[in-house]
Amino acid sequence: MLENNYVTLYDNLSSGKMEFIAHHQSKPNFRFIYADLLDEPDVKRAMEEHDFVFHLSSNPDISKSMEQPDLDLKQGILVTFNVLEAMRLNGVKKIIYTSGSGIYGDVGTTYTAEDFGPLLPLSMYGASKLACEGLISAYCHMYDMQTWIFRMANIVGKRQTHGVTLDFINKLRKNPKELEILGNGKQSKSYLHVDECVEAMMFAIDHSNEKVNVFNIASNSYIDVTSIANMVIEEMGLKDVKLKYTGGSRGWKGDVPIVRLDTTIINKLGWKAKLSSEEAVRKALKELLGKE
Amino acid sequence: MLENNYVTLYDNLSSGKMEFIAHHQSKPNFRFIYADLLDEPDVKRAMEEHDFVFHLSSNPDISKSMEQPDLDLKQGILVTFNVLEAMRLNGVKKIIYTSGSGIYGDVGTTYTAEDFGPLLPLSMYGASKLACEGLISAYCHMYDMQTWIFRMANIVGKRQTHGVTLDFINKLRKNPKELEILGNGKQSKSYLHVDECVEAMMFAIDHSNEKVNVFNIASNSYIDVTSIANMVIEEMGLKDVKLKYTGGSRGWKGDVPIVRLDTTIINKLGWKAKLSSEEAVRKALKELLGKE
Repeated sequence: MLENNYVTLYDNLSSGKMEFIAHHQSKPNFRFIYADLLDEPDVKRAMEEHDFVFHLSSNPDISKSMEQPDLDLKQGILVTFNVLEAMRLNGVKKIIYTSGSGIYGDVGTTYTAEDFGPLLPLSMYGASKLACEGLISAYCHMYDMQTWIFRMANIVGKRQTHGVTLDFINKLRKNPKELEILGNGKQSKSYLHVDECVEAMMFAIDHSNEKVNVFNIASNSYIDVTSIANMVIEEMGLKDVKLKYTGGSRGWKGDVPIVRLDTTIINKLGWKAKLSSEEAVRKALKELLGKE
Repeated sequence: MLENNYVTLYDNLSSGKMEFIAHHQSKPNFRFIYADLLDEPDVKRAMEEHDFVFHLSSNPDISKSMEQPDLDLKQGILVTFNVLEAMRLNGVKKIIYTSGSGIYGDVGTTYTAEDFGPLLPLSMYGASKLACEGLISAYCHMYDMQTWIFRMANIVGKRQTHGVTLDFINKLRKNPKELEILGNGKQSKSYLHVDECVEAMMFAIDHSNEKVNVFNIASNSYIDVTSIANMVIEEMGLKDVKLKYTGGSRGWKGDVPIVRLDTTIINKLGWKAKLSSEEAVRKALKELLGKE
C-alpha cells in the first residue's frame, strides 16, 4: 500500500510494537502518530486530507472484560465513534472495519453466512464488534460513506501478541513438562494467516462496491485446541509434555467453542484461502519460534 | 404491576412528565427517582434490592442525531451499559429491553422475523438499539442474567411526546390551512397502541424463559403517512387542508420508509394485537385530542 499512497498509522501501541514499523519510518509517504483513539481532537487532526480509513483497532483480549467490563465499550465502541466522527468532520468517505465471528454468538456447528441472525454475542468483545458494525452502517447511510466490514476467523502470524498458539509457546517456555489448556481442548475454529487476511481484504475492496459490504473471511477448515497444543509441542521439539485441561467446553466466559464461518460470498467472488487452518497455525508457529 | 410489587421509577424526565405519575406518588410501594442514567453512582444506588429491570429509556427523536451525532451513543449505548453494570454490581438478574424495528435497516417490504440478517441500521437510533441488544446479550451470558428484548412497531398513545400523529396535530394547530408532510407520504409502517404494547410485553415474559428472548411486537397491518394526515384532519374537524409534501421516499435521513415486522413467534405463543394500525392511530389521536 505504501508504494502508491500516503499512509498515516495511528496507534497507541497497546498491542502493536514500534519494531513492526521501524522499516517504514524513513519513508517520505509514511507518518506514524503515537496517540489514542479515545482522544477525539487527535483523531480528528490525524484524519485530515485522507480518503480511506483502515480501522483495525480493538481490544484483542476477549476474556479481559470479565475483570474490566468497560474495556470493549471504550476500546471498541467509543473509539469507533471517534473514528466515524473524525471521518464525518473531515469528509472522509471510505472505511474498512475488522469485525469478527464473535457477533454470531454461540450457534454450534451451524455455518453462519453474512445474513445469519439473530446476532446474540456471548462476550463484550462480540457485543462491541456488533455495535461498531451498526454505528458504521448508520454513518454510511447518514453521511454517504462506504464500508467494507470483515468478520474474521482467528488471525495468526509472526506479530501476534495474543492467541492460543503464542499462549502455548509462552507456557511451555516456562514449564516444558506440563501444558495447561483452557477448557476441554475441543474448541474448534478456523485460523487464517495474516498475509492471507490482508490479501482477502484488498481483494474484497477491489471486487465489491455496495454502500455497506460485509464479508466473512476464513479458511474453510478447522482445527481444535488440543491439535494446536500438539503442534506447538512438536515444533518446539519437546517430548512427554503432560496436557492439563481446566475443563468445560469454553476456554473462558464468553468464549465460543465452535466457530463455522460460511465464506461462500467471497469464495464466489474469487478469493479462497490457500492454507488450511492447520497450515496457517503451523506457519505462524514457525514464525513465532523464529524458524521462518 | 404496582399491586404486587415495589416499583422504583428512574427517569430524567427528558421526555416523560410528572403528571404521568402523579397518581402513583402517594403509594407506599412506589418510589420516583429524578436522575439521569448517565450518572453511574445514582443508577447503581437506585438498583439496590430490585430483581427486575424494565429498561425503556432511549432518545425518542430519531432525526435529531443528524445535528447531535453523540445523542444515541450517550442516551442509548452508554446508559444501557450503566444499567447493566448497576445490575451486575447489585446481582439483579432480569432485564426487559425495548429495542425497535430500526435494527433491521431498510429492507423494503420484506417481513423481518427475529432471526433476520444482516442487521445494518440506517440511523444512529437503530445502531444504538442494535448495540444495546448486543451488550445485553453479552451480559446475560457472562453474568447469568436473563432478558426479554422487544423490537417494536411505532407505539402510539395519549402520553406520546413524539411521532407523526402528534406532529400533525401540532402543525395543524399552528396552521389549519396547510399541512407539511415529510417525504412523499407513502412511508408505511405498523402502529401499536401503548396499552397493547404493555400487554404484549407482559405476555411474552410469562410465556418464554430462554436466557435471551427476542420478540417482534406489532399489529399485523400497516398505514401510510398520508392516511394518518387525513385521519388527523378529519378528527380535528378541519376541511380543505392543503397537503404539502417535502418529497423523497424518506421523512428524514435515517428514516426507514417501509417497515414490515413478522410477528409469527409471539402470535403463535398466543398474543395478537386486537387493534389494526389504523385503529391504534385513531385511538391515540382521539386521546391526544382529548376526545377519549
